[in-house]
Amino acid sequence: MLDVIIIGSGPAGLAAAIYAMRAGLQTLVIEKQPMSGGQILNTVDVDNYPGLPGIGGFELGMNFHQHAQKLGAQFVTAEVTAIEAATEKEKVVVTTGQNYTCRTIVLAMGATHRMLGVPGEEALRGMGVSYCATCDGAFFRGKTVAVIGGGDVALEDALFLARGCEKVYLIHRRDTFRGARSLQQKVFDTLNIEVIWDSVVESIEGEGMVQLLQLRNKRTGQQSALSVQGVFIAVGISPDTDMVRELVDCDENGYICADETCETSVPGIFAAGDLRTKPLRQIVTAAADGANAITSAENYLYHCD
Amino acid sequence: MLDVIIIGSGPAGLAAAIYAMRAGLQTLVIEKQPMSGGQILNTVDVDNYPGLPGIGGFELGMNFHQHAQKLGAQFVTAEVTAIEAATEKEKVVVTTGQNYTCRTIVLAMGATHRMLGVPGEEALRGMGVSYCATCDGAFFRGKTVAVIGGGDVALEDALFLARGCEKVYLIHRRDTFRGARSLQQKVFDTLNIEVIWDSVVESIEGEGMVQLLQLRNKRTGQQSALSVQGVFIAVGISPDTDMVRELVDCDENGYICADETCETSVPGIFAAGDLRTKPLRQIVTAAADGANAITSAENYLYHCD
Repeated sequence: MLDVIIIGSGPAGLAAAIYAMRAGLQTLVIEKQPMSGGQILNTVDVDNYPGLPGIGGFELGMNFHQHAQKLGAQFVTAEVTAIEAATEKEKVVVTTGQNYTCRTIVLAMGATHRMLGVPGEEALRGMGVSYCATCDGAFFRGKTVAVIGGGDVALEDALFLARGCEKVYLIHRRDTFRGARSLQQKVFDTLNIEVIWDSVVESIEGEGMVQLLQLRNKRTGQQSALSVQGVFIAVGISPDTDMVRELVDCDENGYICADETCETSVPGIFAAGDLRTKPLRQIVTAAADGANAITSAENYLYHCD
Repeated sequence: MLDVIIIGSGPAGLAAAIYAMRAGLQTLVIEKQPMSGGQILNTVDVDNYPGLPGIGGFELGMNFHQHAQKLGAQFVTAEVTAIEAATEKEKVVVTTGQNYTCRTIVLAMGATHRMLGVPGEEALRGMGVSYCATCDGAFFRGKTVAVIGGGDVALEDALFLARGCEKVYLIHRRDTFRGARSLQQKVFDTLNIEVIWDSVVESIEGEGMVQLLQLRNKRTGQQSALSVQGVFIAVGISPDTDMVRELVDCDENGYICADETCETSVPGIFAAGDLRTKPLRQIVTAAADGANAITSAENYLYHCD
């Protein structure tokens, strides 16, 4: 009987593993793929994890993994297909390999940024194609970039980028924004943001770096090319929570309802990282969740048996 | 007119500075002492900041500081004596040097662990004297340690340490614990925890490392020596919030009331790190607060003017 099973091995899961090992808990990390790190593996440069300026995403993922491994954390590679929260004291994690019983579970499967699904997007990811202005915006200081989307995040990204970039195009497929009115007003008042309405990106082009967006106006059908050095895609994010939506309370977007204690609606099951309801999804906030989730799991173990 | 003034330069303040610079905000960090880092400067080994296993506290503080500096953060050394939150758009920070006006403020002055105030405590700090079992407990695996205190934290520390240490003495000056009943039961049921009632520590002794505690039984007056390799002092923690208790809502222990958004009761003033109400005070959770506080400050600036 394990004290805790951690599902997922991005920054949240690995930080949880570090804290669990230091707390002397019998711990197992179940990762879908044998390479830990989650979304950061696809991040070329991470410059916002405090204390490690300029580190690469792959390297940071490896650092987290080695930290957990140095403390003796055990890993298995398997896909979790079901969780049975039979009793307060015993839970069963069903995987494509074997089943495991444990007393507490930390859900840390992360989230996936929605893609546009256009040619060039995958190939130029990390070379000018980004899904996170807060993460990558600082690399585009003085440059010309585009933001794709029309919700709060797209508007905030455009405003954020406009402070450092020479010019920001905000490209939206409709003729009105969904985002908050106050944000819209700020966008309209910002001189170096230009809104391109009714338009979709048909492809992203460039040799080794983003250079050009091919656009199509949905109303007129007219095609045009836009020269940019970066493109920030803000068309949504999906938490990887399909497997647990019947088990724990989730909000309308599929995020697991949990505050910074990481406690879910099921006692003994905790949610850490991008998959929970939270104000900011960053590596450092995911890592903090890992620490908080294990502290909550320890408290649960103290008071439960 | 600055966008944000950050008061304090521990992990929370420096992470806030990193995020503020990356967001292109006009930022000033006011630190009481010219050496940044906060409590971690007094920590010999930090092994629980994910991604940097085994780093020293001083080194980690310097890493944070250099990270902020590399991004262009400005620092001044001064003591803040008052904050005037005159209007939503303008706040004045009064210091022993000059006054500064700004639009938002991040309070990150941290907290101080209460000391016993006995001979040897200061000299052996970091050499067996610790104020944080979660931080330092793993260094005492297989050893004999003492925990001083009788509240929830002392009981949790004893249970935490008992999983890795050979023997844990729990020394309390009264004959009953203040801590939760369920925790007390767990402590009584744990074979390698021995409670020493009615007793106070008179001095901590050792050559370069903690070796001996001199105890006195308050009821009988009897003195005795106890051989230990570490002593965890859990007699409370004080947030450094005296200066702002009239300004923002604080709880009965002086912690600033704020959830993970770091928003205080005063719009435009944010609280990050150990000084706010939160479940776990660690370097990584302080760093996460810095990121969250700046994100909240950005949102405030978007929606306020």
